[in-house]
Amino acid sequence: MGNIIDIIGRKFLLFDGAMGTMLQQRGLKPGDNPEIFNIEKPDIILDIHKSYIDAGADIITTNTFGANELKLKDSRYSVEEIIKRGIDIGRKAAKDKFIALDIGPTGQILKPIGTLEFEKAYEVFKRQIIVGNSMGVDLILIETMSDLYEMKAAILAAKENSNLPIFATMTFQDNKRTLMGTDPKTMVFVLEALGVDALGINCSLGPNEFHPIIDEILKYASIPVIARPNAGLPIYKDGNTIYNITPEEFSKEIVNMANRGVSIFGGCCGTNPNYIKAVSHKLQYMKPLNILPKDYTTVCSATNTIFIDGSIQVVGERINPTGKETLKNALINEDMNYVLREAIEQQKLGADILDINAGIPEIDESLIMEKMIKEIQGILDVPLQIDSSNPETIEKAVRIYNGKPIINSVTGDMATMESIFPIAKKYGANVIGLTMDEKGLPSNCEERVKICKKILDVAESYGIEKNNIIIDCLTLTASVNQSQVFETLNAIKQIKELYGVKTLLGVSNISFGLPNRKLLNRTFLTMALTYGLDIPILDPKDEEMMDSIRAFRVLSNSDKKAKKYISFYKSQPKEKSELKLDSLDEKDI
Amino acid sequence: MGNIIDIIGRKFLLFDGAMGTMLQQRGLKPGDNPEIFNIEKPDIILDIHKSYIDAGADIITTNTFGANELKLKDSRYSVEEIIKRGIDIGRKAAKDKFIALDIGPTGQILKPIGTLEFEKAYEVFKRQIIVGNSMGVDLILIETMSDLYEMKAAILAAKENSNLPIFATMTFQDNKRTLMGTDPKTMVFVLEALGVDALGINCSLGPNEFHPIIDEILKYASIPVIARPNAGLPIYKDGNTIYNITPEEFSKEIVNMANRGVSIFGGCCGTNPNYIKAVSHKLQYMKPLNILPKDYTTVCSATNTIFIDGSIQVVGERINPTGKETLKNALINEDMNYVLREAIEQQKLGADILDINAGIPEIDESLIMEKMIKEIQGILDVPLQIDSSNPETIEKAVRIYNGKPIINSVTGDMATMESIFPIAKKYGANVIGLTMDEKGLPSNCEERVKICKKILDVAESYGIEKNNIIIDCLTLTASVNQSQVFETLNAIKQIKELYGVKTLLGVSNISFGLPNRKLLNRTFLTMALTYGLDIPILDPKDEEMMDSIRAFRVLSNSDKKAKKYISFYKSQPKEKSELKLDSLDEKDI
Ligand SMILES: [Zn+2]
Ligand SMILES: [Zn+2]
Ligand SMILES: [Zn+2]
Repeated sequence: MGNIIDIIGRKFLLFDGAMGTMLQQRGLKPGDNPEIFNIEKPDIILDIHKSYIDAGADIITTNTFGANELKLKDSRYSVEEIIKRGIDIGRKAAKDKFIALDIGPTGQILKPIGTLEFEKAYEVFKRQIIVGNSMGVDLILIETMSDLYEMKAAILAAKENSNLPIFATMTFQDNKRTLMGTDPKTMVFVLEALGVDALGINCSLGPNEFHPIIDEILKYASIPVIARPNAGLPIYKDGNTIYNITPEEFSKEIVNMANRGVSIFGGCCGTNPNYIKAVSHKLQYMKPLNILPKDYTTVCSATNTIFIDGSIQVVGERINPTGKETLKNALINEDMNYVLREAIEQQKLGADILDINAGIPEIDESLIMEKMIKEIQGILDVPLQIDSSNPETIEKAVRIYNGKPIINSVTGDMATMESIFPIAKKYGANVIGLTMDEKGLPSNCEERVKICKKILDVAESYGIEKNNIIIDCLTLTASVNQSQVFETLNAIKQIKELYGVKTLLGVSNISFGLPNRKLLNRTFLTMALTYGLDIPILDPKDEEMMDSIRAFRVLSNSDKKAKKYISFYKSQPKEKSELKLDSLDEKDI
Repeated sequence: MGNIIDIIGRKFLLFDGAMGTMLQQRGLKPGDNPEIFNIEKPDIILDIHKSYIDAGADIITTNTFGANELKLKDSRYSVEEIIKRGIDIGRKAAKDKFIALDIGPTGQILKPIGTLEFEKAYEVFKRQIIVGNSMGVDLILIETMSDLYEMKAAILAAKENSNLPIFATMTFQDNKRTLMGTDPKTMVFVLEALGVDALGINCSLGPNEFHPIIDEILKYASIPVIARPNAGLPIYKDGNTIYNITPEEFSKEIVNMANRGVSIFGGCCGTNPNYIKAVSHKLQYMKPLNILPKDYTTVCSATNTIFIDGSIQVVGERINPTGKETLKNALINEDMNYVLREAIEQQKLGADILDINAGIPEIDESLIMEKMIKEIQGILDVPLQIDSSNPETIEKAVRIYNGKPIINSVTGDMATMESIFPIAKKYGANVIGLTMDEKGLPSNCEERVKICKKILDVAESYGIEKNNIIIDCLTLTASVNQSQVFETLNAIKQIKELYGVKTLLGVSNISFGLPNRKLLNRTFLTMALTYGLDIPILDPKDEEMMDSIRAFRVLSNSDKKAKKYISFYKSQPKEKSELKLDSLDEKDI
């Protein structure tokens, strides 16, 4: 059938159905590893695979779901033995159809909730993938994941130890979140950022419950979408688990999903060759819809997606030790509680994203950066911006970050782009492009626009789309460069008009050396927002700045009906000067 | 020589020199009216005129400087007799040269400093002009004025009682102001607004002292400029007044002025035919420079010009009784002290222009409007904006206003333009054009731009240049029209880009019905300023708004080196929240 990459999205692809369900009917005892059958009862496995091929499946999933060293630690067979035999059997059944190396969860829970280290999970998956890759499967199917972090470990293992296509599906609960809290759109943005070839959901729910989740996935996905539902919901009857949907009902719902854009199907728990046959039968005269590429700019933690969509997202700037003695000492003493408090407070005050910087000479920057990220992502759902001038620190940070971060930053200098863009591409991070280069800070709008163009072009050559580049037009100090204030603002406007790219700006530099800095800061902030600034970087403890943002969101029609504004301010005590004026007005009216 | 209007600015024109100085040598006694000579010693006058014609003068000034009913009230001759004879003699001497009906000050001081009513001054001048007009002079020369208000009375009298060209010159002191405080540029803008044909200065100083004043006039004037200096500065010697500059020195300085752009000359006190001869000799082979039309938008009191030039001028909105019970009562009781206090306070708080409105049904709007204007212009140098929906009130107000006001307002409805534009043209007022019409408030930017274009076109048909039209793009209420907030802002931007016209906007309407109005107001204000708003109308007691304006002036490079900003804020006590943050920062650094 050739390379599956050439086919996905153009023709429907049909996975097989359940393996475990079938094996229980053939003597698998509860608590046993189904993968042992690959060695001890290979004919049963071959038989099941063949029955799915006969039913019309295009892809056989190897019987290797749980074949990892953690689940097999008490087994008499090695991971390698089991996977090799699994692939052998799969290939024998599939003949010229595709076979997918099936990889399920490790079975253990990652830190900080569990005890499994991210890099240990990576090693577990790596061992599975090395075997699969050496045996020549057609793709790697990472499935039934509840934890996006574990999924990331598996994807990285797949990418770093093979060139195989990666299909990735997670399993969702009724509340449209995975057990670990990831929502469909966050899954879409993070998995696409990590470079998988198809994504979707499997298990836990039947096709009827899949619909709302699939709809959300289809709204945001730019790559082919997979749906492998159970045969409905489980019913416990006479000590057995049976499922409530017939092959006919199942296949009708699959057609429904096909009509909305899903192009890769299969069955999970409770399904059998009859289900696959019904689906195959129904899909044979249909063609998949095109998945149109989307160009959202998003920043994600594992459970939260921030859209950069003109509604103003605030980056909190407080976790940066430059000039902050207390934070500096906290980092030196590895006092992560202090860091966490700063993070929690900033989010509470309205930060949508947090900048994280550990750039002081007294500490091991990479180590402390990793520590901070792990602490914060373990507690808060606010996405992070990795801020370092050290590419090694950046790579370590984005590797262990559980989401789609922003990297702060590259400049128009080729050296910074050459060191950072490969990292951003591999780990799927957004990158801030500062409109400066080896010649320093530009003095006018035109030079900024030129550097922006260069950054976008170089990014493209690394396969990074412009929706993942965020441009910083750089605020100069008004007391020194008063005539250039509008150069920055005009650059924001022009860059957005010319390239449709999102913009970010730190504003407080504007007021350096002048009295009443807060007034200048909030005024400049409003000016920049008016000219199209998407992401201000600021101190969320600066109430005037946050006030300005809340007001701007009303005036730019993003806080619809001023609901958030009203709920924030309706109970605020009036300021002194306001009281004075108001009492006058009331008297006057 | 044809019509002088066809010549001015294209050829040099030379007035004669002093009359009074010559007459003193021929027997005029101190305290006598020199104009009596017209009847009693006409040969002497004729002789002097002829000597100037022989010296090369193009224009003979009739011996009528003081021929007004106030100065002649104890005379045995009437104003009419003296002026008629003066013109007769002038014509006899001038032959085919030009003669100018000379009109000097009434000799009395206008209210509120003196006792002379503006309309009485008008009547005095009117009587002179009626005679001059009936006798067929070539132009009216209104000269040696120290009071712009008196000058305005004379110009209105000339315009309403003749179609003669008007040349208007004032007399300045060493401090570059007239005795009543008018500065050269204010004179230029007000006299041009009133429609004189040439303007300039005469008397009081010699040509050397004229230079800085003439330079300022030339910088701003769009019409031919007149310089008629004395023969230097007076020296009191042996009981006689003599002047310190020779005809040769005098003419050298005249050439100097000619080279900088002055095209109409003459001599004042201390000059004689030798001076005129020297000037005539020097100018005969020279050609005047072109006076290029200027397009400043200015609003003037008698002693202060506000340039609408992008540096943000604030209109104080407090003198408007709508919804203000205290002010309403003050107007009903004609309590002008209350009005004055409001005016003074607004100017102190930073208002550059004051809106004046008397629109309540309980009072005679025109009467109270006139009263308010007279009170305010007698005390303050802040220019005024006449705010009324009644054309009669507007005409009465701009007539007695001593300066170049703004009329608030017309709309795109032809009826309002037809009633207001003739008044604006005659009295030289700026006019606010509201971008609404008989169909009501437009919902988008495009309709606003269209109405603006219509207003500019109709204004042009009335001879009103677009620099005298100020467009109000109208602020809607965000709680009702949230999606249209940027329509107003975009209209400001487009109107400025397309037509280069200045814009004005009341901002506080934006926040109606929402909590924390001051926050929305100042945020919207900053947004509008960023999009090019020139003139916000607001309550100067709103500190946050005024703060925003002061900050914007720094950031838009109009408060150079932030000098005003620094001097305003450097000694301000810090706000509570600022103290909190600062103490943290200081601890941190
Ligand atoms: Zn399942
Ligand atoms: Zn004089
Ligand atoms: Zn004179």
